[in-house]
Amino acid sequence: MENAAFPLYAVCAAVIGILFAGYLTVWVLRQPPGSKRMIEISGAIQEGAMAYLNRQYKTIAVVGIIIVIILYFGLGWITTLGFIIGAVFSSLCGYVGMNVAVRSNLRVGEAAKKGLPFALVVAFKGGAVTGLMCVSLGLLGVAGMYALFRDPNYLIGLGFGGSLISVFARLGGGIYTKSADVGADLVGKVEAGIPEDDPRNPAVVADNVGDNVGDCAGMAADLFETYAITAIGAMLLGQLFFPGKEQYIIYPLVLGGIAIIATIIGSYFVRLSQGQEIMTALYKGLAAAAIIALIGFYPATTYIFGSPRFFYAALVGVAVTLIIVFLTDYYTSKRFRPVKSIARASQSGHATNIISGLSVAMEASISPALTIVAGILVSYVIGGLYGIGIASMAMLSMTGIIVAIDSYGPITDNAGGIAEMAELPPEVRNITDPLDAVGNTTKAVTKGYAIGSAGLAAIVLFSAYTQEITRVRLEAGILEKISFLVEDPWVLAGLLIGGALPFIFSALAMGAVGRAAYEVVNEVRRQFKEIKGLMEGKARPEYGRCVDIVTKRAIKEMMVPGLIPVIVPLLVGFLLGAKALGGMLMGVIITGLFLAVLLTAGK
Amino acid sequence: MENAAFPLYAVCAAVIGILFAGYLTVWVLRQPPGSKRMIEISGAIQEGAMAYLNRQYKTIAVVGIIIVIILYFGLGWITTLGFIIGAVFSSLCGYVGMNVAVRSNLRVGEAAKKGLPFALVVAFKGGAVTGLMCVSLGLLGVAGMYALFRDPNYLIGLGFGGSLISVFARLGGGIYTKSADVGADLVGKVEAGIPEDDPRNPAVVADNVGDNVGDCAGMAADLFETYAITAIGAMLLGQLFFPGKEQYIIYPLVLGGIAIIATIIGSYFVRLSQGQEIMTALYKGLAAAAIIALIGFYPATTYIFGSPRFFYAALVGVAVTLIIVFLTDYYTSKRFRPVKSIARASQSGHATNIISGLSVAMEASISPALTIVAGILVSYVIGGLYGIGIASMAMLSMTGIIVAIDSYGPITDNAGGIAEMAELPPEVRNITDPLDAVGNTTKAVTKGYAIGSAGLAAIVLFSAYTQEITRVRLEAGILEKISFLVEDPWVLAGLLIGGALPFIFSALAMGAVGRAAYEVVNEVRRQFKEIKGLMEGKARPEYGRCVDIVTKRAIKEMMVPGLIPVIVPLLVGFLLGAKALGGMLMGVIITGLFLAVLLTAGK
Repeated sequence: MENAAFPLYAVCAAVIGILFAGYLTVWVLRQPPGSKRMIEISGAIQEGAMAYLNRQYKTIAVVGIIIVIILYFGLGWITTLGFIIGAVFSSLCGYVGMNVAVRSNLRVGEAAKKGLPFALVVAFKGGAVTGLMCVSLGLLGVAGMYALFRDPNYLIGLGFGGSLISVFARLGGGIYTKSADVGADLVGKVEAGIPEDDPRNPAVVADNVGDNVGDCAGMAADLFETYAITAIGAMLLGQLFFPGKEQYIIYPLVLGGIAIIATIIGSYFVRLSQGQEIMTALYKGLAAAAIIALIGFYPATTYIFGSPRFFYAALVGVAVTLIIVFLTDYYTSKRFRPVKSIARASQSGHATNIISGLSVAMEASISPALTIVAGILVSYVIGGLYGIGIASMAMLSMTGIIVAIDSYGPITDNAGGIAEMAELPPEVRNITDPLDAVGNTTKAVTKGYAIGSAGLAAIVLFSAYTQEITRVRLEAGILEKISFLVEDPWVLAGLLIGGALPFIFSALAMGAVGRAAYEVVNEVRRQFKEIKGLMEGKARPEYGRCVDIVTKRAIKEMMVPGLIPVIVPLLVGFLLGAKALGGMLMGVIITGLFLAVLLTAGK
Repeated sequence: MENAAFPLYAVCAAVIGILFAGYLTVWVLRQPPGSKRMIEISGAIQEGAMAYLNRQYKTIAVVGIIIVIILYFGLGWITTLGFIIGAVFSSLCGYVGMNVAVRSNLRVGEAAKKGLPFALVVAFKGGAVTGLMCVSLGLLGVAGMYALFRDPNYLIGLGFGGSLISVFARLGGGIYTKSADVGADLVGKVEAGIPEDDPRNPAVVADNVGDNVGDCAGMAADLFETYAITAIGAMLLGQLFFPGKEQYIIYPLVLGGIAIIATIIGSYFVRLSQGQEIMTALYKGLAAAAIIALIGFYPATTYIFGSPRFFYAALVGVAVTLIIVFLTDYYTSKRFRPVKSIARASQSGHATNIISGLSVAMEASISPALTIVAGILVSYVIGGLYGIGIASMAMLSMTGIIVAIDSYGPITDNAGGIAEMAELPPEVRNITDPLDAVGNTTKAVTKGYAIGSAGLAAIVLFSAYTQEITRVRLEAGILEKISFLVEDPWVLAGLLIGGALPFIFSALAMGAVGRAAYEVVNEVRRQFKEIKGLMEGKARPEYGRCVDIVTKRAIKEMMVPGLIPVIVPLLVGFLLGAKALGGMLMGVIITGLFLAVLLTAGK
C-alpha cells in the first residue's frame, strides 16, 4: 500500500513544478515590455515563431495519426494512450516554453536599463519556464500513467510519443535556425559588412525566430524525450531485475520528484554578485540544484531500500552531469586553452584555422566519452545494470535546471537583437552583449549534457531491450538465451549499419541546411539589390519573405531525415532479425555519441 | 606431404613478383631522364625524400629495438624473428618503391614529349614496382616463415612488425605531405597568387617530397601491414576452426600467390586506347587482374578442398574491392553528381560550400559501410568466420594492382611539378596535367580500398583474438567461455574507449599538421619578404629550409600519436581486462571506419 503513494508524491512534485512555472510566467509578463518599436519587433519574432511551430506540429500530427492507428490495432489502447500523452506533453512543453521565451526577450532588453544583475534574472526566469515544464510534464506523464496502470511496460508508448516530437522538432528547428543564421551572416556580415542583428538585414527576424524554434522548442522536445525514456528505462530495469519488488520501479520517480523541488530552490541561487562572471551566476544555480537534490536523495533512498546503496549510483549520475558541463565549458569558453589555440592558429590563415579547430573538436569528444565510460563502470559496480539506470535517471533529473540555463541563451540572443534593431542606447547593448556571449557557451554546455545523457539513456534502453527480448522469447517457449556477441556477424552487421546511421542522418540534415541557406542567401541578395534605400536605412527590408522561406524549407526538409529513425529500425528488425537490431542500436550509440560531440564542439 | 608444397609455391610466386618488380625498375631507369634542369630538380626531390626516409626509419628503429628486447624475453625468439622480418620487409617495400618513384617522375615528364599513352605507361610501371614489392614481400614473409615453422601462431610477430612501421610511416609521411602541401598552397596560391608548383615557391620541393613519403612510402607500409595481417588472421581462423586440416591454413597463401601472377599479367592491360579516359586505362588493369585472379582461384579451390565452396567467399572479397573502388570513384571524381553538387553550392559562398561538402562526405561513408556489411554477411553465410577470413584475403590479394594505381599518383604529380619548374613547353604540361588530375582520384580510391580492407582485416583479427583467448583460457583450465556481449558494461566501456581512439588519434595528427604547416607558412612568408628578386624570378628560393622544417616536425610530431596504438591497448588490457580490450578493438573498428571514410571523402 505504502508503495502506491510514491507515484502520487511524484505527481505532486510535477504539479508543483508546473505551478511554479506558471508563477514565473506571470512574474516575467509583469515586467515592462519597453518601447513601441521593441514590442513591434518582438511581435514579428513571436508571429514568425508561432507560425512555424503551428505548421510544424500540424505536419507531425499527420505522421502521428498514422502511428496512432497502427499502435491502436497492433498494441492496444493503453500503449496508444501513452503515445498520445507523450506526444501532447512534449509539444505542450515546447509550445509553452517558447511562448514565454518570445515574450521574455524584449523584457530582458528593457530590464537591461536597470543593470546587468536584473537583466540576468529576467532572462533566467524566462528560460526556467521551459526547463520546469520539461521535467514536470515528463514526470507527470510517467508517474501519472504508472499510478493508473502500475506496469512500466505500458509506458513504452509514452516514450515513443516523446521521441516522435523530439526527432521532428529538433530537425525542423535545427534546419530553421542554422539556415537562417548562415543566410543572415553570409550576406549581411560577410558580403555587405553590416553588423549582426542589423535591422537592414532581411534575414534578421528569421534568425531571431530560429533561436527560439531551434534552441528553445527543439531542445525542450529533445530533453523531454530523453527524460521520459530514461525514467521508463530505469523503471523497466527495476521490474526485470527485481520482479515483484515495486520499490525498484518507483525509485526513479522519487528521484525525479525530489529533483524538481531542488530545481525550484536552485533557481533562486542564480544571482550575480559584485564582480562575478555571468557564467558563474548560472553555475551557482546548477550547483545548488545538484546539492539540494543529493541532500534529498539520501534519506529517500535509505527510506525506500533500507540501505544507501543506490544513492551512490545516483551520486555518480549527478557527478557525471557536473563533469560534462565543466568539460564542455572548458572546450568552448574563450577563457581556456582550446579556443585560445584556435585563435592563435588563425593568424596563419584559414586552412590552419580549420585544421586546428577540427583537432580541438576531436579532442573535445574524448573527455566526455571517458566520463560516461567511468560513470557506466562505477554505477555498474555499485548496482549492476539497475545501477546504471539509476545513475542515468539522476543525471536526467538535472534536466530542469540545465534547460533553464539553455533557454536563457535564445532569450538573451533575441534581447540583443531587439536592442540593436530598436536602436536602444549603447548602455543597453553593453549589458545584452555579454549576456548573449554567455548564451553561446550555455548552448554548447546543454548540447554536451543532452548528448551525454542521451548516450546513457540509450544504454539503459539497450539493456531493457535485451532483457525484454529474452522475456518475450521465454514466453514464446524459446529457452535458448539470445546473446549479442560482438563477433557475431549479425550483431556486427547491425553495429556497422547502426554506425552509419548518424552519418546518413547528419548528411541529410546538413544537405537540408545547405539548400535552405542557399535560398535565404539568394533572397537576401535580391532584397539588397532591389529595395532602394535599404542600405541607407531609408527603407525596411521584407522580413516576412525570409521567415516564409525557412519555414517552408524546414518543414519540407525535416521529413526525409525524420523518417530514418522510424523506418530503418523496422527494416533492420524485419530483414536481419533481433540480433542485427540490437547491434544497430549499439552502433548508433557509439558513432552517434562521438559525432554529436564533434559537431557540437566544432560548430 | 602434398600440403608442404603449397607454401613453397606461394614463396615462388612472391619471388616472381620481386623479379618482375626488378625488371620494371630496370625498364623505367632505361627511359631518358630529360634535361639537366629536370635532373637537378628531381635530384633535389630524391635527396629530400631519402633524407626524410632515413631519418624516419632511424627513429622507428629506436622504438623497434626496445620492442625487440621485450619480445625476445617475453615471447621467445621465433616471434621476435617474425617481428624483425615484418619490420624490415615493410621498410624495404617503402624504401625500394619510393626510390623508383622519385626516379620515375622526371622520366614521365620526358616521356610526355612522346604523347599521353607512353607517359601513362612509364608512370604506371614506376608505380607498379611499389605495388608488387608490397604484396611480394608480404607473401614472402608470411609463406616463408610458415614453410619454416608450420604454425601460424608464430607469425603474429610478423604482423606486429608490419604494424609498427605502418603506424609511424603513415603518420610521419602524412604529417609531412599535408603540412608541406598546406604551407605551399596557403602562401603561394592564396596569398601570393602564383600557380601550384611554381619554382618561386620556397615550399614547392617539400611539397613534391611529401607526395612521395606520404602517398608512396606511407601507403605501401600501410597496405603491407594490412596484407600480412589479413593473411595471418585467415590462417589462424583456418587453424582454429579446422584443427589438424592444414589445407585451411595454406589456402590463403595460395590465393595470395595466384593474385601476384594475376597482377603481373593485369599490369599489361593498362594501356590507353584511342579516345579513352586515363582512369579507364587504369581500371582496365584492375579489372584484368581481378578476373585473372578469379580464374586461377577456382581450380585451386576445388583442388585443395574438393569443392568450390570457399571460392565463392573469395569471389565476395574481390567483388567488395571492385564495388568500393567504384563507389569512391563516384564520390570523388568530377564526372559525377556529388562533386558537381558541391561545386553548385560554392556559388553562394564559403559556408554553404563547406556544409554541402561535409554532407556529401557523410553520405560517402555509408555506401562503403553497407558494402562491407553485405560482404561480411554473405561470406559468413558461405563459410562461417573462416569464410569472412577468405573474403578478406581475396580482397587484400588485389593490393598489388591497387597500390600500383595509387603510386602512379605521386609520380605524375611530381612529373607535373618538374615540368612546371623546369619550364618545359606547354605541350608537356598538357599531358602531365590530366595525368596528375587522375592521380587525385586514384589516391582517394586507394584510401577507400585501404580503409575497407583494414575494416575487414580488423574483423578477421577480432575473431582470431576471441578464439585465441578462449583457447588460452581453456589451456589455463578456465572452462567458462569468455563472451563479448554488447550490453556487458566492461565490453561497453571498451567500445566507448575504442570509439574515442580514432578521434584522439586524428586530433593529435591534425594538431601536428597544423603546427608544422604554421612553421612552413612563416618560413615561406619570410623568404618571399627577405629574398630580393624572388618574385621576379631573378633569385632562387631556399628550398632546403622548408624540407628541413617539415622533416624535423614530421619526425617529432609522429611520436605521440604513434605510441597511442601501442600503449592504449596494453593499458586497457591490464587495467580493465580482456573483455574491455575486445570491446575496444571493435569500437576502434566502428568509429575508425566511418571517420576514415569521412576524412578521405571530405579532404
